[in-house]
Amino acid sequence: MSEISKKLTDFFEAHLPLAQFMQMEVESYDGNQLVLTAPLEPNINDKQTAFGGSLYNLAVMTCWGMLYLKTQEKGLKCNQVVSKGAMGYLAPVTGTLRAVCNAPSEEELTTFFEHFERKGRARMNLAANIECNGKVAVEFEGQYAILKEVAKV
Amino acid sequence: MSEISKKLTDFFEAHLPLAQFMQMEVESYDGNQLVLTAPLEPNINDKQTAFGGSLYNLAVMTCWGMLYLKTQEKGLKCNQVVSKGAMGYLAPVTGTLRAVCNAPSEEELTTFFEHFERKGRARMNLAANIECNGKVAVEFEGQYAILKEVAKV
Repeated sequence: MSEISKKLTDFFEAHLPLAQFMQMEVESYDGNQLVLTAPLEPNINDKQTAFGGSLYNLAVMTCWGMLYLKTQEKGLKCNQVVSKGAMGYLAPVTGTLRAVCNAPSEEELTTFFEHFERKGRARMNLAANIECNGKVAVEFEGQYAILKEVAKV
Repeated sequence: MSEISKKLTDFFEAHLPLAQFMQMEVESYDGNQLVLTAPLEPNINDKQTAFGGSLYNLAVMTCWGMLYLKTQEKGLKCNQVVSKGAMGYLAPVTGTLRAVCNAPSEEELTTFFEHFERKGRARMNLAANIECNGKVAVEFEGQYAILKEVAKV
């Protein structure tokens, strides 16, 4: 695992008990695409397929993770939150859960970081898909915000 | 706990390991409103507030549970799935997660069940809110479908 994607794994381990229970893992990150996986067993439902909530958790964290890694690469210290999430369930997922998020373009990132520097906050939409048997089974789109860190009082 | 809401607790215990890890519980169900809760600890994030994925899981299951209990009251045998889910995160949740779903009207339920009898499937939108400190912190809307059970081959 690359040093940068290790940061995401460390984040899950340090801060998200639910991601640990799901056995959420970074499969790969090459700067352009982030892939997170989770085995079916802890994420199963009554139909012996993936629970809709687990599919959401994996998708929301794949997009969150993409933005987190982009801010880490940039060396930014910021607070990052999800503000909206929309799921479409097209087909059941019958095996390992595997979510893919493609990086925003360089132009989008430049605009995003410039806005952050100027305003102290910026928003971005990111999408993730989960495939099963070669077809898209889940479509996710989320809206994320980064905010300048405020000292706790 | 009433006999009918016990069915939902039994369902979580039998079929959803993630709901068990979250310690998802039925707080109340009176036929008109279903309230599910989960403690903060297993659902915490890096900000010491509720993880956005846990909030989604609780909301999606509160609406799912409402429809499940309505089909149980009706004595229907059917397969129930979530087809869409949309979350809006308005404010952090700093304590126990508590999601509330109000029942569809009698007219809506009648139309829904009639459609199911005629077509073998029916869809319904349901909404849930999660409040924190007296204000709505999370808004959820989901689309659910019930389908006639098909014998497994």
